[in-house]
Amino acid sequence: MSAFDKLFAYVDENQKYYIDRLAEVVAIPSVSGEASRRPEVVKMGEWLIKELKTLGATVQVHHPGKQTLEGQELDLPPIVLGTYGTDPAKKTVLVYGHYDVQPAFKEDGWATDPWTLVEDDKGRLIGRGSTDDKAPVISWLWVIEAHQKLGVEMPVNLKMCFEGMEESGSEGLDEYIEKEAKGAFFGDVDCVCISDNYWLGSNKPCLTYGLRGISYFMVEVAGPGKDLHSGVFGGTVHEPMTDLFTVMSKLVSPTGKILIPGIYNDVAPVTESEDKMYDSLDFSLADIHSAMESKCTIHGTEKEALMARWRFPSLSLHGIEGAFSSPGSKTVIPAKVIGKFSIRSVPNMEPKKITELVKDFVNAEFAKIGSKNTLTIDCGHAGKAWVADTNHYNFVAAEKAIERVFKVKPDFTREGGSIPVTLTFQEALNKNVLLLPMGRADDGAHSINEKIDKTNYIEGIKLLASYLHEISVAQA
Amino acid sequence: MSAFDKLFAYVDENQKYYIDRLAEVVAIPSVSGEASRRPEVVKMGEWLIKELKTLGATVQVHHPGKQTLEGQELDLPPIVLGTYGTDPAKKTVLVYGHYDVQPAFKEDGWATDPWTLVEDDKGRLIGRGSTDDKAPVISWLWVIEAHQKLGVEMPVNLKMCFEGMEESGSEGLDEYIEKEAKGAFFGDVDCVCISDNYWLGSNKPCLTYGLRGISYFMVEVAGPGKDLHSGVFGGTVHEPMTDLFTVMSKLVSPTGKILIPGIYNDVAPVTESEDKMYDSLDFSLADIHSAMESKCTIHGTEKEALMARWRFPSLSLHGIEGAFSSPGSKTVIPAKVIGKFSIRSVPNMEPKKITELVKDFVNAEFAKIGSKNTLTIDCGHAGKAWVADTNHYNFVAAEKAIERVFKVKPDFTREGGSIPVTLTFQEALNKNVLLLPMGRADDGAHSINEKIDKTNYIEGIKLLASYLHEISVAQA
Repeated sequence: MSAFDKLFAYVDENQKYYIDRLAEVVAIPSVSGEASRRPEVVKMGEWLIKELKTLGATVQVHHPGKQTLEGQELDLPPIVLGTYGTDPAKKTVLVYGHYDVQPAFKEDGWATDPWTLVEDDKGRLIGRGSTDDKAPVISWLWVIEAHQKLGVEMPVNLKMCFEGMEESGSEGLDEYIEKEAKGAFFGDVDCVCISDNYWLGSNKPCLTYGLRGISYFMVEVAGPGKDLHSGVFGGTVHEPMTDLFTVMSKLVSPTGKILIPGIYNDVAPVTESEDKMYDSLDFSLADIHSAMESKCTIHGTEKEALMARWRFPSLSLHGIEGAFSSPGSKTVIPAKVIGKFSIRSVPNMEPKKITELVKDFVNAEFAKIGSKNTLTIDCGHAGKAWVADTNHYNFVAAEKAIERVFKVKPDFTREGGSIPVTLTFQEALNKNVLLLPMGRADDGAHSINEKIDKTNYIEGIKLLASYLHEISVAQA
Repeated sequence: MSAFDKLFAYVDENQKYYIDRLAEVVAIPSVSGEASRRPEVVKMGEWLIKELKTLGATVQVHHPGKQTLEGQELDLPPIVLGTYGTDPAKKTVLVYGHYDVQPAFKEDGWATDPWTLVEDDKGRLIGRGSTDDKAPVISWLWVIEAHQKLGVEMPVNLKMCFEGMEESGSEGLDEYIEKEAKGAFFGDVDCVCISDNYWLGSNKPCLTYGLRGISYFMVEVAGPGKDLHSGVFGGTVHEPMTDLFTVMSKLVSPTGKILIPGIYNDVAPVTESEDKMYDSLDFSLADIHSAMESKCTIHGTEKEALMARWRFPSLSLHGIEGAFSSPGSKTVIPAKVIGKFSIRSVPNMEPKKITELVKDFVNAEFAKIGSKNTLTIDCGHAGKAWVADTNHYNFVAAEKAIERVFKVKPDFTREGGSIPVTLTFQEALNKNVLLLPMGRADDGAHSINEKIDKTNYIEGIKLLASYLHEISVAQA
């Protein structure tokens, strides 16, 4: 019996145990975004520390400092750093996950108590944090435990970085990784694996190799010293709203084309092999329609739609601060308005260049209209797009592991959003990073009735174990 | 000694009394917009009823019904109808005012307690409601009282209509006037006088003969079934915000020109005599700049600016409901957004025609962009512009009264906003309506430190008395 067979049989035999343990952590409402729940986040961190120590891992704890939330000064929850194995002959794999969760209230429409894991008749394990990101995080522990119970040697040195602030901006994490990149914990890592995203659909596992970046802009138009009555001043004053609409309407066409000159210049061309890859993806337009509860898609084919999401930039207008936004009617001329929009960027667009192009264009368009108001535009925050080399052994090992567990070749996917820590690991450690999702597209990570399918959890534990074994034999 | 001389001397002798009585009503915080203050509004109505009865007026009280405010069902405050004199040989003048006030909180920046009338060293009487509209309302009572005390016969039959909901939409008033237009109270009115607006500047009294109308529009663009993440959906979906900005940016130019075809067709041409009238007005661009705390005016001359405010239409974009409007950044694609804008209309624009033009244009512009989203546009509410015949004896009498009291010819002004009851009186009663302001442009009616200058109040009492006498001898 191979190590794989032994491990798979062990995992199958212990399904009930794994589900009970998932229920145990779901019951800890570790919501990082609510000040009153902060002790629960800390409790969840301590749960991990205790489990890691029980498994014989070395545990370091980093306290990133304080934050102000809802007017209270709070300690940030600990970054938990576990090390299992230090054999110089083995590869060292760094895995990342987060133990905090999104808020959840029964009255938002949950069918069951969000903090009580429930298995329904379709084999779905329902509860807040089930898929995002507690099942993946604890599965790394079950991989170590299974090896111990079976007397099978762990094939790699495992380093685990678990944070408690992912749902609230990962405060303190990037700085720590960057500072400690060459230190004892991160310094000898060979490759990185993050299990915190989702399959493209519901049937086929995938490996994720790209994320779009984001550049978020605030464009402020100001003039009058205070809000004015439109009866008294309408027609006599340069209205900041008119200026803002004039400028913001020039940014993107209703069919999604960004109208800022030069913005597409640095977009990497689609290669032939890349183009081909899109043909076999487990995806249909109906998936998008179902996710957005509407058929207002711009494109007529899956390939066009996915390319528009993954590998071309987009520009969205989010809203206006300072204008009238309540129900009803108000005859106000807002004195100062801040338009918000963002560009999702792709390789090889650079945030600095994006900001330059946007500023030049917006300033030029504003100059054209001859308003006496003033306009200022700033990039609020920016993160670069990320793309990984899928020929790296990290991906090859994961692909083999998927074939072994699921008997199918994985989809290679990107995502339209950003997971900032991905780029931080790649840039700070200069190592290949893999996104290896466990759950499905329809898990409802930030929604009501969040779930992970029991098969995804159980096969997922096997997948993580297999991945480490494939890593250990892969050609570096 | 003429009746005028007697009255003027009496008013001058009783200045302290008038100020004390104004202090008495300012001390009743009759805020119609706050549920908890409703009893104070009723108390103010009862104060008027008692005073009117003491003066020997006949008083009718109309209770307009109920409203829901802040989740509470409240009785609307009474419409107080006073009649003083029923001599068929005299003209019957209807005067209107309101006894409710805007909210006021010390912490908004008031230098003194808003509910305690304070006279400062510049002779300003500071307190909420001082100018809007308590001094004008009670001044009508002082006119009757002065005649009684002096034994001078009232020159006209006076009908007084005082409401307690003006600052909160005048609920129930229009319906009542329209229903009772031919009834015992309103049926025999010869002309109407409203003292609830302001001089154009700080030095010269005016008579107001025109108001702009308003047509308020809501344009809704909807598509996705729920708000979407811009990372996941940006580039793949027709975004309602993009559609809305594209359409709304076509409505008005940054220099205030409305771009809806045909909208200017019904604007009455400026006559030669009208044009001339603008040359002598007590007004400078500095007044606008000071009022709006900025120099962002579109026009370079007073005449252009005032015409743009009074006698040409304007279009203002007020805001968006459903979009991101808070500080900070949020990467949302709003699913359903409602843009709000309004057109200030002038004679001879008709609300029905305005709505037609706006709908046709907006629908046509939306059709051009080929979006799969849906757009609906509706006129939320509309009020016609108003303009009065300044050759009517109502205006001639007021002009003579001003010359008698202030030794100056009044400005003839319009206003850019609307005072809906003006049009209601004119249309329902089919009588000439005059706006006869008592306070100055800088009184800060809805702002902190609202004031009426003592001279405006005292000379204003003389003005109202003189106006009634001039009416009585005017050629009908």
